[in-house]
Amino acid sequence: MRTRPLKVALLGCGVVGSEVARIMTTHADDLAARIGAPVELAGVAVRRPDKVREGIDPALVTTDATALVKRGDLDIVVEVIGGIEPARTLITTAFEHGASVVSANKALLAQDGAALHAAADEHGKDLYYEAAVAGAIPLIRPLRESLAGDKVNRVLGIVNGTTNFILDKMDTTGAGYQEALDEATALGYAEADPTADVEGFDAAAKAAILAGIAFHTRVRLDDVYREGMSEVTAADFASAKEMGCTIKLLAICERAGDGASVTARVHPAMIPLSHPLASVRGAYNAVFVESDASGQLMFYGPGAGGAPTASAVLGDLVAVGRNRISGTTGPGESAYAALPVSSMGEVVTRYHISLDVADKPGVLAQVATVFAEHGVSIDTVRQQGKDGEASLVVVTHRASDAALGGTVEALRNLDTVRGVASIMRVEGE
Amino acid sequence: MRTRPLKVALLGCGVVGSEVARIMTTHADDLAARIGAPVELAGVAVRRPDKVREGIDPALVTTDATALVKRGDLDIVVEVIGGIEPARTLITTAFEHGASVVSANKALLAQDGAALHAAADEHGKDLYYEAAVAGAIPLIRPLRESLAGDKVNRVLGIVNGTTNFILDKMDTTGAGYQEALDEATALGYAEADPTADVEGFDAAAKAAILAGIAFHTRVRLDDVYREGMSEVTAADFASAKEMGCTIKLLAICERAGDGASVTARVHPAMIPLSHPLASVRGAYNAVFVESDASGQLMFYGPGAGGAPTASAVLGDLVAVGRNRISGTTGPGESAYAALPVSSMGEVVTRYHISLDVADKPGVLAQVATVFAEHGVSIDTVRQQGKDGEASLVVVTHRASDAALGGTVEALRNLDTVRGVASIMRVEGE
Repeated sequence: MRTRPLKVALLGCGVVGSEVARIMTTHADDLAARIGAPVELAGVAVRRPDKVREGIDPALVTTDATALVKRGDLDIVVEVIGGIEPARTLITTAFEHGASVVSANKALLAQDGAALHAAADEHGKDLYYEAAVAGAIPLIRPLRESLAGDKVNRVLGIVNGTTNFILDKMDTTGAGYQEALDEATALGYAEADPTADVEGFDAAAKAAILAGIAFHTRVRLDDVYREGMSEVTAADFASAKEMGCTIKLLAICERAGDGASVTARVHPAMIPLSHPLASVRGAYNAVFVESDASGQLMFYGPGAGGAPTASAVLGDLVAVGRNRISGTTGPGESAYAALPVSSMGEVVTRYHISLDVADKPGVLAQVATVFAEHGVSIDTVRQQGKDGEASLVVVTHRASDAALGGTVEALRNLDTVRGVASIMRVEGE
Repeated sequence: MRTRPLKVALLGCGVVGSEVARIMTTHADDLAARIGAPVELAGVAVRRPDKVREGIDPALVTTDATALVKRGDLDIVVEVIGGIEPARTLITTAFEHGASVVSANKALLAQDGAALHAAADEHGKDLYYEAAVAGAIPLIRPLRESLAGDKVNRVLGIVNGTTNFILDKMDTTGAGYQEALDEATALGYAEADPTADVEGFDAAAKAAILAGIAFHTRVRLDDVYREGMSEVTAADFASAKEMGCTIKLLAICERAGDGASVTARVHPAMIPLSHPLASVRGAYNAVFVESDASGQLMFYGPGAGGAPTASAVLGDLVAVGRNRISGTTGPGESAYAALPVSSMGEVVTRYHISLDVADKPGVLAQVATVFAEHGVSIDTVRQQGKDGEASLVVVTHRASDAALGGTVEALRNLDTVRGVASIMRVEGE
């Protein structure tokens, strides 16, 4: 074992950072044995230096993160600040001054992953970020290493614990969206401003990262179609149940029809109760991966939280530490396939559409004609009358999102259609 | 990209080997991009040279595996022969002659993993074996790399597809063991001689490998307690259902009570229907990992089959290939913790015991006294009378296997106990 320690700087000391520091201390001997050298916490950059941080030597604490990453004697910089700046500049500065980087920053990786990888390569350093997607669940490493000899065709996942908690609550208790959100907030699963979670921004960042790794193609946050789950209603869950389904907010990355392009999207969707993702409860995350040789794999676990995320950070720390000692680097960005990213219109899936229609003869024929004119084939129709109005639930065969969009627009123009109550994609079949 | 190819020799060309060769050809460009150098199939050692092997140049085929691994120009030897010899000698010979090794050989790794790792280290070569446990499911790499900064406390898994198929069939159709086994054989899930699967030998080898990696401790096949599933009956499934459980053949590796030792075992067990492993159907495998920081993770997928296993082999091939090019090696054996392996008697769990007893007053008191005398605390008792005989189903609180064994022996000596119909451990609560 090398006796000279690896020097690690911590940028950020919140929920995740303080757990990283704690485990680095309590598990120091284990980490040393696994890396082949002791690790030394060389500095901690924080915003509020006066806060008491148990187990962290106050002499290590600084508010000058830039000076810390410029020290020149660091082996590894752990970035758990989050957000775009100053994280981006600090990471590139760390590379310039000889350190490798472990980051948990999904937003930054989804927006600027290519540039950060280029900076790491330029300086011959590692950039690892297992913690950026689905917390403790090993996902980046299996996708980029274990499945390196396989061809991934689809990644389908629940990658946001807050929204899964809310949807699970709606499913199991019949609660409405607001009631379930309130409970999630009270229990600490949702933040005061839940926008990033419920509108799918968080999941979209993870989808961009997963799609990039799965398909060896650069996929940016802007390439990801995004629809939140704040409009999912108790009625939608009732409809899902009638179909033997539940509703999950899914991140879906897949090769488009001919395999020559890829798509990435986040939206609520119905999935059959028999699908392994349907039984993912509470704030848990799970990611389903379909590939040529492996078939179907699933990775399940806690998708957030200080300790689980710290576990992912420390796994990367061990790997990067080992690389430092052997004078090498791990696999960097793999974007050689460089497939184009198709728009949402080219996504092909099934749809569940609820229409409020006039309860009179001929309506179904009119509606069916609109579907046929747009090349969208109907699988089942269920009609229910109530007080002169009726509802029509149509489930389609597979069709492109563009064709479905055209169909819905035309349906809205029918006099007999009072409104489109809901449109939901059906996945995982 | 390096233009000089990495030379790969294949030992064995059966179900897995032929898939490895096929993917090496069909995905040659992808593999080259991911490794950073083309890969070349340099030789294939087989037993039956005359068999037609589609897509493999007959000039590469040889029956002299020893000469092949002694060539001296090989970068990587892929061993998919299975069994102890000649696989063991071929692997060590490969190291001696400069090659790294990718193996799918669970029996060999479970028996001689330490010696093989030592040989790899001595020659500065890699030994990778993701395919040895649970087919395509990334498990070795997540355990030894992703969780390298965490402390694993328990690994609980369904690691044999044949037995899971049989138990699932018994559970869902009410079939008896023999009927379910016959169906598994007819469908190709069970071999003509199913002993290795149904008696738990296959799962025990995987348990030894998993325990070693999870606890950084050498665990050999002989250290693993093993009980097969051929005595599980339809009545056991009925009892399990009454408890809200199902029955799975589990491989369980855990730290013993005080954390100063480890245990590894394979046996049928009841697990609650709410446990994620309970819904693992058919021939699928899944492994549940509990650790300090990550909490509960699960890895799910096809545990066998040519293509899935080949996917795992090729993931290792890419990793080892990258290591060769950068002149390094990946993580080797990690056995620094060197914890003792405790015997089955020290395992602490819950038990479900069915007794056939005389249907007369005082029997329950007698039975309860025996449990108390052996320090085994009873959770629930259910008594059912029929024709002068009665059955008594006892579920215990947590107790050591030794204490339970003593209890059962004493119960057998009671005049009022006609027989012990079944004893089954209850796990995953």
